Amino acid sequence: MVNTNMRWKLPLICFIWQLAMIVLFGVFIRYSDEADAARWPEYKRNHSITTNVENDFYFRYPSFQDVHVMIFVGFGFLMTFLQKYGFSAVGFNFLIAAFGIQWSLLMQGWFHSLDYNDGKIKIGVVNLINADFCTASALISFGAVLGKASPVQLLLMTLFEVTLFAVDEYIVLNLIQARDPGGTMTIHTYGASFGLMVSWMLWRKDVECTKDKQSSVYHSDLFSMVGTLFLWMFWPSFNSATAGHGDGQHRAAINTYCSLAASVLTAVMISSLLNKKGKLDMVHIQNSTLAGGVVAGTAAEMMLTPYGSLIIGFCVGIISVLGFVYVTPFLASKLKLHDTCGIFNLHFLPGVLGSIVGAITAAAATEGVYTKEGLNANFGFEDHEARIPTTQGGYQAAGMCVALAFGLGGGTLVGLFLRLPIWGDPADENCFEDDVYWEVPGDEEIGPYHLEERNHTDTKH
Amino acid sequence: MVNTNMRWKLPLICFIWQLAMIVLFGVFIRYSDEADAARWPEYKRNHSITTNVENDFYFRYPSFQDVHVMIFVGFGFLMTFLQKYGFSAVGFNFLIAAFGIQWSLLMQGWFHSLDYNDGKIKIGVVNLINADFCTASALISFGAVLGKASPVQLLLMTLFEVTLFAVDEYIVLNLIQARDPGGTMTIHTYGASFGLMVSWMLWRKDVECTKDKQSSVYHSDLFSMVGTLFLWMFWPSFNSATAGHGDGQHRAAINTYCSLAASVLTAVMISSLLNKKGKLDMVHIQNSTLAGGVVAGTAAEMMLTPYGSLIIGFCVGIISVLGFVYVTPFLASKLKLHDTCGIFNLHFLPGVLGSIVGAITAAAATEGVYTKEGLNANFGFEDHEARIPTTQGGYQAAGMCVALAFGLGGGTLVGLFLRLPIWGDPADENCFEDDVYWEVPGDEEIGPYHLEERNHTDTKH
Amino acid sequence: MVNTNMRWKLPLICFIWQLAMIVLFGVFIRYSDEADAARWPEYKRNHSITTNVENDFYFRYPSFQDVHVMIFVGFGFLMTFLQKYGFSAVGFNFLIAAFGIQWSLLMQGWFHSLDYNDGKIKIGVVNLINADFCTASALISFGAVLGKASPVQLLLMTLFEVTLFAVDEYIVLNLIQARDPGGTMTIHTYGASFGLMVSWMLWRKDVECTKDKQSSVYHSDLFSMVGTLFLWMFWPSFNSATAGHGDGQHRAAINTYCSLAASVLTAVMISSLLNKKGKLDMVHIQNSTLAGGVVAGTAAEMMLTPYGSLIIGFCVGIISVLGFVYVTPFLASKLKLHDTCGIFNLHFLPGVLGSIVGAITAAAATEGVYTKEGLNANFGFEDHEARIPTTQGGYQAAGMCVALAFGLGGGTLVGLFLRLPIWGDPADENCFEDDVYWEVPGDEEIGPYHLEERNHTDTKH
Repeated sequence: MVNTNMRWKLPLICFIWQLAMIVLFGVFIRYSDEADAARWPEYKRNHSITTNVENDFYFRYPSFQDVHVMIFVGFGFLMTFLQKYGFSAVGFNFLIAAFGIQWSLLMQGWFHSLDYNDGKIKIGVVNLINADFCTASALISFGAVLGKASPVQLLLMTLFEVTLFAVDEYIVLNLIQARDPGGTMTIHTYGASFGLMVSWMLWRKDVECTKDKQSSVYHSDLFSMVGTLFLWMFWPSFNSATAGHGDGQHRAAINTYCSLAASVLTAVMISSLLNKKGKLDMVHIQNSTLAGGVVAGTAAEMMLTPYGSLIIGFCVGIISVLGFVYVTPFLASKLKLHDTCGIFNLHFLPGVLGSIVGAITAAAATEGVYTKEGLNANFGFEDHEARIPTTQGGYQAAGMCVALAFGLGGGTLVGLFLRLPIWGDPADENCFEDDVYWEVPGDEEIGPYHLEERNHTDTKH
Repeated sequence: MVNTNMRWKLPLICFIWQLAMIVLFGVFIRYSDEADAARWPEYKRNHSITTNVENDFYFRYPSFQDVHVMIFVGFGFLMTFLQKYGFSAVGFNFLIAAFGIQWSLLMQGWFHSLDYNDGKIKIGVVNLINADFCTASALISFGAVLGKASPVQLLLMTLFEVTLFAVDEYIVLNLIQARDPGGTMTIHTYGASFGLMVSWMLWRKDVECTKDKQSSVYHSDLFSMVGTLFLWMFWPSFNSATAGHGDGQHRAAINTYCSLAASVLTAVMISSLLNKKGKLDMVHIQNSTLAGGVVAGTAAEMMLTPYGSLIIGFCVGIISVLGFVYVTPFLASKLKLHDTCGIFNLHFLPGVLGSIVGAITAAAATEGVYTKEGLNANFGFEDHEARIPTTQGGYQAAGMCVALAFGLGGGTLVGLFLRLPIWGDPADENCFEDDVYWEVPGDEEIGPYHLEERNHTDTKH
Repeated sequence: MVNTNMRWKLPLICFIWQLAMIVLFGVFIRYSDEADAARWPEYKRNHSITTNVENDFYFRYPSFQDVHVMIFVGFGFLMTFLQKYGFSAVGFNFLIAAFGIQWSLLMQGWFHSLDYNDGKIKIGVVNLINADFCTASALISFGAVLGKASPVQLLLMTLFEVTLFAVDEYIVLNLIQARDPGGTMTIHTYGASFGLMVSWMLWRKDVECTKDKQSSVYHSDLFSMVGTLFLWMFWPSFNSATAGHGDGQHRAAINTYCSLAASVLTAVMISSLLNKKGKLDMVHIQNSTLAGGVVAGTAAEMMLTPYGSLIIGFCVGIISVLGFVYVTPFLASKLKLHDTCGIFNLHFLPGVLGSIVGAITAAAATEGVYTKEGLNANFGFEDHEARIPTTQGGYQAAGMCVALAFGLGGGTLVGLFLRLPIWGDPADENCFEDDVYWEVPGDEEIGPYHLEERNHTDTKH
């Protein structure tokens, strides 16, 4: 029986790690020109900007806040469907996200600062968005191991996953120069394959003994819908947040909006069709309706066209529900891969599909549709003499392979590391239960849970 | 006993309909100039725009997202007050909204594209907002039949209601040239009268046998408050989202903010006053506090003045609660019109009142207050030589009558159509119950609901 | 046994007060130049503004909506942790906020309009933000008396607290010219000390007899996390909403984001460390994770640097949890000060600490870091020949003392006033119970609660 007491392990990792952040931020991180009291006025003069509204803050902050809501409320509440694991779903999501965004600012910034000569990382609103993006990959992985890992394991997983994310992203976006504004490759494909591998490594043969705790209750499914809806509504902001100013962000939002709408209809369609009595399954409504956002991520900024967006949303809504109905149980029974939230169906399948869609859309780009100016703005061809749409399509496909390789490889290694019996993961019979790691009040009035106790936990027990 | 099995009907309508959307989008829908990679740079040159921040995206996207939240979380959760109907409230709201916005883009766009010569519908962020607006009318109608209609009936109602909305809106805004930025006439008056007529046509004499299921439980009322608050907070965005750039949007937000604040105070006042023990009723707090947003919709962009906004919010908060206490029971007992959410009190009464307020405010407009320039900007008088404020007031009143006519007439016809016994509506004893259409987990730990079942619904039963 | 019947008292105060608002708004309140149909075009000409996007609305409205969410959903749901007091937490928060913002527009506006010559209060989006800020102080105080005061007492408290807030703010920001964009001094320090004094004056020796009702249940803690997360996510908007255009708002958001992230880690750290079994306490996660936002409020716009933000977030997360564990119980048992939500730990301690941080950061400002231009933009030194950073630091400290004085003094007086036995506060045994002031449905299906009853409350009992 492993010791799940976090009293020393959890505080220690939080303390050391937050202390390290302070030191590293002190050494490396500074404000971007647009956030610096001294350099913004100078920046305006140098770029002959006449109004403060051209500060990138006003182009991106509203989208940043939408993304922020997706990360903390969206992912957090989406995972509250388990009847006895709501505190952990929201609370651990909160913890690892707050941990991840700091590390992301450093890791992503470090790679981008390779270009700078002063070796400092300059952060502005776009870095905050990218930090949320980077952290999202860890939250996706969290979905696969939900209920089966300790907070310490989750923090370690986040630490490694964010680090590899930054490397992967640098290769895909900067070296290969693939386009991926919504992170279909770098966030969803990478994060899902990473998480699935970790969950595979952490397989417990007795996980089935907790079947009943792996189910939802009426209210927990409603809390989960809060997460679903905030993810669904704000996904257009997610895919457009880092797109190009002007038409780029505008188009990315429209494409994602269309794709999401279509996947809702087809997810409902298949959910009803596959049920003997034609009843809808909340799991599909909570998850597969979001597949349209994932699949549109790479091509969001391209001239995907509104109907093109509907088509990919149409297909992915179907595929995602089929995954929940046939693939997830198969993975668990045959491959010994237990995927609590079904990230295989919400992130992996739509992620791979969306990467391919992006490659095709890029390869099909023409000057007639984009104009020379538009092609350069969208694909940055002026940076590469050699690049033309068809080659870009190839590089997009290469980007997907890199993301998959990092996800599968990294997930396997990290999963093996997390199998060490020292991280305080719960015993099989305690999986999917908050009270291993939380002071849990009674379910209804039963079990008095007094004020002093609420405020004076160290006198408990 | 009607057959409520949706297994073939629901998938079929979703499939055919989503397929039709793809085809129609392919034929008709293109990006607007401001969202098109090729045309935006050209557009900037033609309008001598120097910065991307003048792309309409940056004027309207934040408001669009607020409206989006109102449509999906606001309306969805507001209707979760029923103790056994939360899945349907949120889930069907999600389904018909995703269905409605696509159809709205086509219908509204088709009427607006009458002006274009190439017959294509160009969509940008303002079209997304209008699609949400249009869909809102169907969600309002949903409130009247909540718990008594099948998803197929709801989808059909949405199909027809959105279509008529587009016609109605074209007449009111384009032909009559009435002003209605917050949709008091086109959304609330139309949607409420439409829904009330549908509910009237679908009257069930045994609806009272399910009295207990028409009540709330403690937690369901809290979920409902999530919807109420998001509607209340973002209503200033709703009424200002499509208002004129600059002072128009600014003023619309201020007016709505004031009106909403006043209606909260007076709703609480009457709710307490009409209860023998002075206790507050959650139904009134959840609904009547929002009446201030509805009533301010038409006049939002006009020089209504902050105190004028307070006055209309003051009155409508009172009227709305009185409606809940006296009119709704009367409609049910005497007129055989059962209005589940009380849309008569939240949307119909405030809608009619707000339309009249708009007409008066328009008629009272003067050059002294607006300046010639302001009058033209607000009422577009330069387009019509004949228009002066008093005549505009008349046209506003005419707009309300048109909206009422479309709502009452359309609702009656659609209601009759939905009475056909082939749409799988629930038996009287199964009204207001999720498990007719949903796989529902146990209320608390009771009823094991296993992982395979969650993931493999077609093996159930 | 006091009479808790609100039937006449509550409607009367709402009626008189809302009527007064209408009159006062009519006499004093007008649109700002940027929201006025006649004056905005003129304003543009006078300031040679070429585009509507330079209307302050577009600089501040998105942040305003985030702040709005914090006020109504954030504060409202944060307080729903009590098992039987959810309606009151959300409902009274809604009521006093809607009451407070109107009064704030007048009170704050009146002081600012002292400068105008026409004696009118011109309101625009920045006034709406400030009204939300001002009201926040009353909602903080509400946290201390949660469950123990009647709605009438809460409305009276809000009336006086908002009035004093305006005076305090005018002295701190306009006379002393201290900087406080996030209201660490004027909102948190003032509001917390005010509320603690009121709660002290309203001490009930038998409050412990309701221990069990002062506890949470599983679902109520999840609702509370909805409030926590929306407060946490949008706090960067809170601290940057009224900061300077351009780099000011940009920097304020970054600093707050960093500080908040750090406080999550350290709050988790101490919560686990102080529990014998290393289990986390929801109270700490719900509250202490937010301390990082409070502490960064005053220095948010200054060149605090990202690592400086991490440091203050690090410290305050620790201090806040220690407060919950050791100070709150001590206040209750020794000082007879019962603080229901622990605002001492979330607002008072971080508020005082943040004020000091602001003073030090201001005193440490140099031309090397800010440039002369930046110093003037951040501290408005050009207005005062005498001002240099060190003196500014002194004035910041003076500002904190003024805020404390107003809070402690005002809270004591108002608390004494609220002790009058005529305001209908609940008997000790009815504290923390909704059904003193609300029609409460059964907890589950028990207790039929019929439609007529929902709609026809005056026939009840």
